[in-house]
Amino acid sequence: MTETAPTAAQTACFEAGIKFGSLYHQFAGTPISPDSADSIATAMEDAIENQPHCQSVDVWVDEVALEAALADSSAEYTELTGRFLEVEIVVVTEAYRVETRMEMQDGYPLMALESVRERS
Amino acid sequence: MTETAPTAAQTACFEAGIKFGSLYHQFAGTPISPDSADSIATAMEDAIENQPHCQSVDVWVDEVALEAALADSSAEYTELTGRFLEVEIVVVTEAYRVETRMEMQDGYPLMALESVRERS
Amino acid sequence: MTETAPTAAQTACFEAGIKFGSLYHQFAGTPISPDSADSIATAMEDAIENQPHCQSVDVWVDEVALEAALADSSAEYTELTGRFLEVEIVVVTEAYRVETRMEMQDGYPLMALESVRERS
Amino acid sequence: MTETAPTAAQTACFEAGIKFGSLYHQFAGTPISPDSADSIATAMEDAIENQPHCQSVDVWVDEVALEAALADSSAEYTELTGRFLEVEIVVVTEAYRVETRMEMQDGYPLMALESVRERS
Repeated sequence: MTETAPTAAQTACFEAGIKFGSLYHQFAGTPISPDSADSIATAMEDAIENQPHCQSVDVWVDEVALEAALADSSAEYTELTGRFLEVEIVVVTEAYRVETRMEMQDGYPLMALESVRERS
Repeated sequence: MTETAPTAAQTACFEAGIKFGSLYHQFAGTPISPDSADSIATAMEDAIENQPHCQSVDVWVDEVALEAALADSSAEYTELTGRFLEVEIVVVTEAYRVETRMEMQDGYPLMALESVRERS
Repeated sequence: MTETAPTAAQTACFEAGIKFGSLYHQFAGTPISPDSADSIATAMEDAIENQPHCQSVDVWVDEVALEAALADSSAEYTELTGRFLEVEIVVVTEAYRVETRMEMQDGYPLMALESVRERS
Repeated sequence: MTETAPTAAQTACFEAGIKFGSLYHQFAGTPISPDSADSIATAMEDAIENQPHCQSVDVWVDEVALEAALADSSAEYTELTGRFLEVEIVVVTEAYRVETRMEMQDGYPLMALESVRERS
């Protein structure tokens, strides 16, 4: 019989995924402009860092992409979506450290595990 | 026949309502703790001020209510909801200034028009 | 001195705005595909109809716009945003009936009051 | 040197976490009543099943908890939050099948990996 109970490393990766899905779907759709980019980035970091095992969250708004979207539009703001974001999240559990990252790839905001490291 | 075309004052009140519904439902559910209360309040203000005709948004997190909710809980954060918030939004259109407010009333976050003033 | 206390009609328009902002910012960002368009439209209607004074909410997903967005993409779903939606909301208070509508105008989802009618 | 590149099983667990965080933070705060519980549950299932590798999502609204919350309230609806939900999500990647579950534990909606199985 195959063992199917999750390992500590797998659980740490599951936790990291939760943080990414939370961050994205809590804040997608927020009205954003160059003037409000910094405060939403800070709020996203602080909010998600509240979640269990979340050691750090870093959010960058791609202001070039944001300005380009606004140049095409009749409005002075747009809605926050993945194409304006780069995000790094580090999750630390008792035994593991997991580094993750979201960035645009082929027009789609790809969330990926970067490394899974046993803590010594 | 009764005239049913909206007046400029009614349109300003409709705009004010949009801002309140947007603020509440964009940010409800955000993980919040005393440490992250300031940054989410600032982000809510800056985000909603992007919307058309929105002159100012002021958000206060009721830290006493927040601490009380956390004291009852096994977690160190909770989810943002109306009972932790007081909000004032001012909408200004060409002809009208509308002041609105949300605060707790009988356990329910009540959003209300405070004043509708013709601009001179 | 000018009277600034809101009228019953203005309050009804404020309520209508709340429903629109709520609907938009609760559901913007939801993963959507042609297969899930009907169930999210129904859920949006039922959820917002819970709010006070909300007599009816009708949501249509523009499947042509949705298919076009997916044809341009490497993914089989996208995120719900205003350009895929048409919405009608009717608010009824003791004295007024307010009809409102959201549809795309110049690439921007415009929410507008259609009529404000005194109830006889 | 320790190997830190994520395994296929860890990646599947990360994907499962994304689905859970997305589901929770997209829909938390939605107005909900006994009458709208079924349609929001269906919409949550269909929306999240759009995401990559997501084989199935099952959502149950705990109507007893919902009725109890409404009995304590002056309103006829409340906001969707974890204490009204049970959720099961199955993620299937090329090599792994991951089963996950969210349910209330000590007043906190706990998301957990149930099993991680190699596909034969």
